[in-house]
Amino acid sequence: MTQSPWQLAARAETMNPSAIREILKITERPGILNFAGGLPSPETFPVDAMRAACAAVLAEGSAVARPSLQYAASEGLPELRQWVAAELGRQGARVVPEQVLITNGSQQGLDLVAKVLLDAGSRVLVETPTYLGALQAFTPMQPRFDSVDSDDGGVTASGLREQLQKGERPRFVYLLPNFQNPSGRTQDEARRQQVIAVCREHALPMVEDNPYGELWYDQPPPAPLLARWPEGVIYLGSFSKILAPGLRLGYVVAPPSLYPKLLQAKQAADLHTAGFNQRVVAEVIRDGFLDRHVPTIRARYKTQRDAMLAALAHHLDGLGAVWTQPAGGMFIWVRLPEGLNAQTLLPAAVEAGMAFVPGAPFFAGQSDVRTLRLSFVTSTPAQIERGMAALASVVRAAMSGTGSGSGA
Amino acid sequence: MTQSPWQLAARAETMNPSAIREILKITERPGILNFAGGLPSPETFPVDAMRAACAAVLAEGSAVARPSLQYAASEGLPELRQWVAAELGRQGARVVPEQVLITNGSQQGLDLVAKVLLDAGSRVLVETPTYLGALQAFTPMQPRFDSVDSDDGGVTASGLREQLQKGERPRFVYLLPNFQNPSGRTQDEARRQQVIAVCREHALPMVEDNPYGELWYDQPPPAPLLARWPEGVIYLGSFSKILAPGLRLGYVVAPPSLYPKLLQAKQAADLHTAGFNQRVVAEVIRDGFLDRHVPTIRARYKTQRDAMLAALAHHLDGLGAVWTQPAGGMFIWVRLPEGLNAQTLLPAAVEAGMAFVPGAPFFAGQSDVRTLRLSFVTSTPAQIERGMAALASVVRAAMSGTGSGSGA
Repeated sequence: MTQSPWQLAARAETMNPSAIREILKITERPGILNFAGGLPSPETFPVDAMRAACAAVLAEGSAVARPSLQYAASEGLPELRQWVAAELGRQGARVVPEQVLITNGSQQGLDLVAKVLLDAGSRVLVETPTYLGALQAFTPMQPRFDSVDSDDGGVTASGLREQLQKGERPRFVYLLPNFQNPSGRTQDEARRQQVIAVCREHALPMVEDNPYGELWYDQPPPAPLLARWPEGVIYLGSFSKILAPGLRLGYVVAPPSLYPKLLQAKQAADLHTAGFNQRVVAEVIRDGFLDRHVPTIRARYKTQRDAMLAALAHHLDGLGAVWTQPAGGMFIWVRLPEGLNAQTLLPAAVEAGMAFVPGAPFFAGQSDVRTLRLSFVTSTPAQIERGMAALASVVRAAMSGTGSGSGA
Repeated sequence: MTQSPWQLAARAETMNPSAIREILKITERPGILNFAGGLPSPETFPVDAMRAACAAVLAEGSAVARPSLQYAASEGLPELRQWVAAELGRQGARVVPEQVLITNGSQQGLDLVAKVLLDAGSRVLVETPTYLGALQAFTPMQPRFDSVDSDDGGVTASGLREQLQKGERPRFVYLLPNFQNPSGRTQDEARRQQVIAVCREHALPMVEDNPYGELWYDQPPPAPLLARWPEGVIYLGSFSKILAPGLRLGYVVAPPSLYPKLLQAKQAADLHTAGFNQRVVAEVIRDGFLDRHVPTIRARYKTQRDAMLAALAHHLDGLGAVWTQPAGGMFIWVRLPEGLNAQTLLPAAVEAGMAFVPGAPFFAGQSDVRTLRLSFVTSTPAQIERGMAALASVVRAAMSGTGSGSGA
C-alpha cells in the first residue's frame, strides 16, 4: 500500500457524519412507530397536480419544454421570483423579485450565507436549541457558535444583550421564528419587537429561516422579521413543506447590497437550480393552487398535533415530563423527568416499538440531555396514541430504575 | 442611512461577477449568429422520453411517485449510482456504486471537491487554458492557481514536473482530458500514460472532469485517468450534455477514503440532489435509451463541427490564424493573427452579426489575448458558414487597421 496522495482541507476535519443521521438509522426498524424523522407526510404531496404540470410543460408543441431543460439563469425563474416577492408582500414585507434567489431547498441558502458571511472563527449566534441542519451548513466555514439564552418564545432580549456584551461582534444571529425545528415554539409579536429592537440597536443582522410558516393550525404567525428590518435580514423560505421536498426548491431573499455576492456563490456552487423543477412548480402554483392545497395540509397536521398533545397529556401525566404546545409546524419538544437521558432511553423506546430523536445534537453549546423531539406529521392519531403510550412505559421503567434508559 | 450591519467573509471579496457572464450579455443581441455560448443544442433534449418518464413516475398507483417527491439519501438514487458504476466499468474503470455521489450537475462536484480539499493558499494546478467554471468553483476556498504548460494534448509531462519542483505540493491537478472546454483538445493515450506516470511518481492526485466524453465524432477517447490510478483520481461526470442540463444531474466518483467527506459536504450543502429528477432520469435511461439517443447527438454535432472546420479553413485561410481540430465536444479554439486581441475584436464581430467568447478568462495565469472560443453545436451549417465569413471579415479589417478590433 502506498500512502494516500490526498491532503484534506482543515475544514474537512470539522465535518462529521450527522449525529442525527446515525440515530435515524436505528429508528428505521420495520414496523416501528417512528416519530424521529423530519419528513413531511407523503400523503400531502400533490401528485395529481405534479403530473398535470409535467405533462403541460413537456407537451408536444410546448414553448417551455426545451427551455425548461436548458441551462438557466443563476437567479432563478422570473415567475417563481415574482411569486416569492408577492407572497412576502402578503405577509407585510416589501420585497422585489430582484432580491429573490432560487436555491436547492433552503439548506443551500444556509450554505451560501455561510460562504458569503463567515470566516474561520467568526461568531454566529443561535437559538437554544437550534436547527441541526443550520449548524451543519455553517460548520464547514468554521465559525464559533454561541448559544443565546432562549425560552418558550425563542431567544430572549436579555440573552441577546448578554452575548453582544462578550467577545467580538457576531456576523449574524440565526433564527427560526415560526414553529421551530426542533422545539415547535414560535416568537410572538412582543418578542419579535424586542428582538428586532436589540438587533437594530447593536447592528446585529439576522438570518431568518421560515420553512414552516405556512403550517399554522390556530392562527397565522406574526409578520416575519424581514418585514421589520429589511436591510438587516436575510430570509430563507422553501417549497419543501407546502409542496414536496424531493423537488429541492427553496429561496433566499437578501438585501440588495448582499444579493450579488450570494448570486456569485450560487453560480460557483452549481450554476443554477434545476430549471425543469422551477418551471413545473411555477405551473403547479399558478392560479392559486397553494391557497387550496395548503389548508388541506394544515387540517391534516392539526388533527395529528392535537392527537399527540392529547396522548402526551394522557400518558405522561404526573411523571414530571414537560413538552411544548406548538401552534404549527411538525414537532413537539419533550423534556424528560429529572435524572433521565433521552439518548440512553432511545434503545428501550425502540425495543418498545417507538422512536424519537434525542435533543442533544440540536444544542450548539451545553446540551440538555433530558430533551427529545417528536414529529407528529407522519403518523395517524391511532399510531400516535400507541406511540405515546409506549414512550410513557419506557419513561416509567427508567424512572423506576429497571429500564436501560436510566441514569444521566 | 445607517451603516450596513453586514460584514462579508474574506472569501467573498474574491468572488466576482463572471467575466464570461458579462460578455455573454453583449452577445445576446437578437438575430446575432451566436457561437459564444456553452449550451448544448436544445434540439437534442429528449422531450418525448422525459414526458413518458414523468408520466410513469407520477402515474396513478405508481409506487415511486411519493418517494420521488420525499427527502432522499444524500448519496443519490441507487439505480443511478449503479448505472454510473456500470458505465465507467464499460470504459475500463473499476468502480462500485458506493463510490458514486449524485450532484447538482458536475459544477457542484467541483464545489464539494474544493470544500474538502482546499485551504486558503493551497496550490491547485490547472491546464493552460482551463475550464472557467472550475476556477469559479474553486475560488471561494481561496487557493492559488498555477497554470501548467500545455500543448494540443493538454498539460505536458515536463510542464507538470516544472510545477512540482517549485513551491509546496499542490493539492491536486485539475484536468479535462476529453474535448476540453474551451480548447476542444484531447489527451491521447501516450499523453495519459505520461501524465499518470508523473502524477503517481509525485503523489499528485488528479481531479478528472469529463462532461463531454460521450460526444466523440471520430472514435471513442482513450480510457479515463480514473481507470489508471483509482486511488489517485476524483472523477466528475454529468447528464447535462447527453440528456439535458436543466435537470442539474451530475456525479462524483471518489476513492473510498475520500467519499465520506464529500458526502458530508454534500449533506451540508443541500441535503441531497432532487429525488424527482433522479427518478425521472433513471426511468429515461433504463433499457439502454442512451445507446440509441447519444449517437443522434454525435451525428448532429459531427456535421456541425465539420461545417465549422470547413468554414474556418475557407474563410480564415492565409490570415495567420490557427485553430484546434476537436475530435469531439462542443468547441473550437482559435488563435488570431499576431497583434490582434479577441476582447477588443468582439464589438466589431457583434456589429458584423456574429459572437464568440474571448479566451482570456480561461487562463489562470498569463492570458493569451489572441485566443477565442467558438461553439459549433447550436448553429446550423448555413449559419456557421455565414458566421465564419463574418469573423474573417472583422479579422481582415482589424489587420488592415480599419476595424475597432485592431491593436493588442
